[in-house]
Amino acid sequence: MSDSGTLADIGEFGLIDRITGSLPDHPMVILGPGDDAAIIKTDTASVVISTDVMVEGRHFRKDWSTPIDIGRKAAAASLADVAAMGAVPTGVVVAFAAPADLPTAWAVSCTAGLRAEIEGAGAALIGGDVTSADAIMITVTALGDLQGRAPVLRSGAQAGDTIAIAGRIGWAAAGLAVLSRGFRSPKKLVDAHRCPAPPYEAGPAAAKGGATAMIDVSDGLIADARHIAKASNVVLAIDSALIDVPEEISAAASAFNLDPREWLLTGGDDHALLVTIKKGNPAPAGFVVIGVVEPAGDKGAGVSVDGHFVTIAGGHRHFGA
Amino acid sequence: MSDSGTLADIGEFGLIDRITGSLPDHPMVILGPGDDAAIIKTDTASVVISTDVMVEGRHFRKDWSTPIDIGRKAAAASLADVAAMGAVPTGVVVAFAAPADLPTAWAVSCTAGLRAEIEGAGAALIGGDVTSADAIMITVTALGDLQGRAPVLRSGAQAGDTIAIAGRIGWAAAGLAVLSRGFRSPKKLVDAHRCPAPPYEAGPAAAKGGATAMIDVSDGLIADARHIAKASNVVLAIDSALIDVPEEISAAASAFNLDPREWLLTGGDDHALLVTIKKGNPAPAGFVVIGVVEPAGDKGAGVSVDGHFVTIAGGHRHFGA
Repeated sequence: MSDSGTLADIGEFGLIDRITGSLPDHPMVILGPGDDAAIIKTDTASVVISTDVMVEGRHFRKDWSTPIDIGRKAAAASLADVAAMGAVPTGVVVAFAAPADLPTAWAVSCTAGLRAEIEGAGAALIGGDVTSADAIMITVTALGDLQGRAPVLRSGAQAGDTIAIAGRIGWAAAGLAVLSRGFRSPKKLVDAHRCPAPPYEAGPAAAKGGATAMIDVSDGLIADARHIAKASNVVLAIDSALIDVPEEISAAASAFNLDPREWLLTGGDDHALLVTIKKGNPAPAGFVVIGVVEPAGDKGAGVSVDGHFVTIAGGHRHFGA
Repeated sequence: MSDSGTLADIGEFGLIDRITGSLPDHPMVILGPGDDAAIIKTDTASVVISTDVMVEGRHFRKDWSTPIDIGRKAAAASLADVAAMGAVPTGVVVAFAAPADLPTAWAVSCTAGLRAEIEGAGAALIGGDVTSADAIMITVTALGDLQGRAPVLRSGAQAGDTIAIAGRIGWAAAGLAVLSRGFRSPKKLVDAHRCPAPPYEAGPAAAKGGATAMIDVSDGLIADARHIAKASNVVLAIDSALIDVPEEISAAASAFNLDPREWLLTGGDDHALLVTIKKGNPAPAGFVVIGVVEPAGDKGAGVSVDGHFVTIAGGHRHFGA
């Protein structure tokens, strides 16, 4: 079948055929696409589930990102949430809404990006829904398996625990700032906005290595550290000197006359994994220690940076409130 | 908190608080909303999953349906898919996209409708995502448990099996026809378009009662019977005399000078459950026999009505192809 023309030419079932063509076998998939529902194995009597929606114009722009990047990014958000429970991603379903005049090649590339990210995280595309809409909207729901471990919640951090992080922070925010100012480079930063690179394996690794709390950094380091702090009723005391400032971010911040730490501390969308590790345990492979958990003080639970309690909101607010 | 004003006034987290407020306990829920992901029990080493998206202007109109009806309808589509595997719905996640100027009261009512349908089907709302968008889009992903049974696929029908159906057919199509012509009554038909009433319990009941194939009727009886026929390589021979024509549908068809059987045979969106039952087994409670499975003949696998092989397409085609 040709991928010239638009979705109006191939129709709903034509698109589904292209998305689900030659799906690889996966040991956890009992039933893939094609029936009323899909079926995933759950070896240990529970299943982890997270859903995430991305909307054209809100979460991505077609003129800033390739369709492959957009597909990858849409899948990454849900997969990272599953990893942040300490689970291994298994199966994913996707709801794909798009205008009938969307070029077929764009839709096919986008769904190829979805599959690349899903399969790269070790999971399988197992089903979905396709419909027409005025704007592109991609809802990704990922399932994960805890392999018999307890889930790592946001509420388990204890005073004395080590704070550590795996994956990039600040990169997507720096890339967005570059694009917003009309530039297309440095490419490494722009690419980081277009497509995150969550450290999926670090989630289960942290769970095995004594993680007491974990979250994926989608709103920004401070905002997401605060989620752990509030849920655990502690203070996450971050030492910014322990956070490496990558040269690319330093250079871009300098060019815009900004403090690079703002991107590192408040930039979201990189889907790093932020954990607290049981006192005495070493940081698991891939994690960098960036602070220590302290008891909640006079100001209650929250986040401090270099000894200063931080009250900025941070994170994107939908609906503008 | 007040529900006057718009989503811009309460913001993303205000809406989430309203949606997840006072969620009831559920025996299958290990972890509900509030962390990176939710966790559902899976007693029998597998989980069924289906996702379904509804878009304003495509699947519903705010001036035709109440927000409660729209929420219920969005949830029903996924829940019915899970039931159509013979599974019991357990947990549901919802991605809700809406304009920032949507009245808060509308969003709260819609999510109340989602919860009503989810809880009415015996399942629990366990998580979701909320974002802004130009149009309302609701993606519902439902999980289900097979309770140790084999799933009932589309591909298991065998010559000699009985064809049976549970739930309404033609009602939603008749209601849509009424609304499309500018009428608001008969209310029972219009309500059927606004909110389906899938027979969720009939799915597991059919699985226990010898169902060899099952599908939920979302595209129309003939179109969905054809899905079973093609997957099973048989002919589903429907005897239209066995399909009761409800008085409401008969009266509306008469008023519009239409054949009521068109609605019954081709109308979708009621989410009836269509099954084939192993030869010799009685129809399970709630099911009405409407035909018999025959071997594929000269014309291949497909559907016949009153002895005539039917080739009409039937069913809504997204993207217009």
